[in-house]
Order: sequence, then C-alpha cells, then structure tokens
Amino acid sequence: MIFLGVDPGFQYAGFGIAKSEGARVSLLDCGFLKMNTTKSLPERVNLFYDYFLDLVTKHQVNVIILETPFLGKNAQNFLKLGYLRGILYLIANQQKLQIMEFSPTQIKLAVTGYGGAGKDQVARVIQQLFPRLPLIKQIDVTDALAVTLCGIWHRPKNDSI
Amino acid sequence: MIFLGVDPGFQYAGFGIAKSEGARVSLLDCGFLKMNTTKSLPERVNLFYDYFLDLVTKHQVNVIILETPFLGKNAQNFLKLGYLRGILYLIANQQKLQIMEFSPTQIKLAVTGYGGAGKDQVARVIQQLFPRLPLIKQIDVTDALAVTLCGIWHRPKNDSI
Repeated sequence: MIFLGVDPGFQYAGFGIAKSEGARVSLLDCGFLKMNTTKSLPERVNLFYDYFLDLVTKHQVNVIILETPFLGKNAQNFLKLGYLRGILYLIANQQKLQIMEFSPTQIKLAVTGYGGAGKDQVARVIQQLFPRLPLIKQIDVTDALAVTLCGIWHRPKNDSI
Repeated sequence: MIFLGVDPGFQYAGFGIAKSEGARVSLLDCGFLKMNTTKSLPERVNLFYDYFLDLVTKHQVNVIILETPFLGKNAQNFLKLGYLRGILYLIANQQKLQIMEFSPTQIKLAVTGYGGAGKDQVARVIQQLFPRLPLIKQIDVTDALAVTLCGIWHRPKNDSI
C-alpha cells in the first residue's frame, strides 16, 4: 500500500509518500510544490492538479490522506484552501484511490503521543523516524509526512482498504 | 460571447447559459445538477467536474461567472463549497475560459437595482426578463441566471475579453 499525505497551500503544498508493508514503513518521496503567487488562481489550481495527478500515477499511490483544517482568521483563505482539497478529491475519484481525513489532534497524537504537540515537536519526531531524510527546512514537508504516517497507522489491520 | 453562471452546491448546482451579442442577450440553457447525497464526496466532486466540463464544451462557453460566498453558520460546509469552486477554476484554466466573480450585493444590484433584494425579488425579475422560461421552482436556477446576467452586464464594452 502506497500512502500520499498532502498539506495543501497556494504558496507551498507539502507532500510525503510512504509505502507500508506489514509493520515496515519506507519513505518513497517527499517535498513540496511551490507556486508563484504572480500566477492567477485558476492557473495555480490547474498546476496543483497536474502536479499531484503526476505524483499519484508515478508512485502508484493507493490512499490520499489529508488533515481536516479549521477556520482561521481569514474565511476567504479557508474557502480557497477548499479549492485545492476539491482537486485532491477529484484525483482520488478519477484514479480510484481512497481518501482519508484526520483532525490536527489525531495527527499530532499519532506522531508524538500528544494531541497538543507543537509544529517543532512534530518536525523533530519526523526527523527521528526518518534519520536519512535531509534536514527539512520547510515545515510543510514535515507536516505532510506526519499526515502520511497518521494515515498508515490508522489503516485497517488487514490492509484490505 | 457565451456566459455560464453557476450556483454550486453538493445537492443542487444551478446554472444558466446565455449568449450576448451587442445589447441582445439570449438564454441558451438553464437547469441544475442534482447529486444524490448517498454518493461519497469524491464521487460528487467528480460528477460535478464531468457535468460542467460537458456543459462548457457543448455550449462553447467563454466565461464562467460565480458569486463570492460569505461564511455562514457552518465553516465545514463553507470549506466544501470551495471544493466545487476549485473544480470550476480547474475547468476554466483547462479550457482557457475567463472566470469572473461578483459579490451577492453586486449581483442583486445588477438584476433588481437594489443590492439588498431578497431571493424572491431576484426570481421575479428573472421571470420577467425571460418570459418564455418555464416556471422555475428551483431557486438555484434563478440565482444562477442572476449571476449570468450580472457577468454579461459587467463585461468590458468592446467584448474583447
């Protein structure tokens, strides 16, 4: 089973792709899509679609995992985050993938053992779990990897997703 | 120039398609996509994509017009509305269409002459403007037609969009 965790955003969209075989988890790829903010919103939505469709097919992903966001200070930014989530839902259905969502608390709890953990704490655990990972400066990537791991650890035991 | 106004929603998604030639506006099509709520969210997002991509290509639409929504009582529903808007942004860029957005006040003002008009008032004006339109019971359709007309009336005068 191949899992893709995504932390979508119009500037940086982080992702982590990992393979799960029994109790073993191996990291296949991680990184982020950086989109130039001078591009129009429709262009960026289309770039996001093309980029993640390509990732999904290249790595033969089976499951997409997302963090359920909560409304912040800016309602219109929250709505726009929905655009990118909608694109991932479209890709999931077009490619016959499962899509899973977890709350921020579930993700932090799964990764650090503490639902109220900070971003730094999550990043440190991710670095410890994948020691061969190059030092990741983009918090979006460690967040996406935390989402990926949460999905893997919450999957049904018989792998028959 | 062919204009498609959309009032997206996961249960009913209303639309109106009109052609503008000089001062003349003719209605080409209107209606709504009804999605069964027993279907999963990814399935409905994909249905919405397929339906509107088909409409856009069939009618050779040039411009998609949307109403900018404002946060209501349920933030998660507001986020999900973003999924469908993201799909329309994707279609717009894939098909090289322009996408325009207007606030509810701008749309009501354009159609009724009063920015604080109610849904019934908008519906009555739409019925008067298109007397040959069958009696529309779905408020989503009159809303979508109001969005379409607002886009047509706000377009640049030289039609060179």
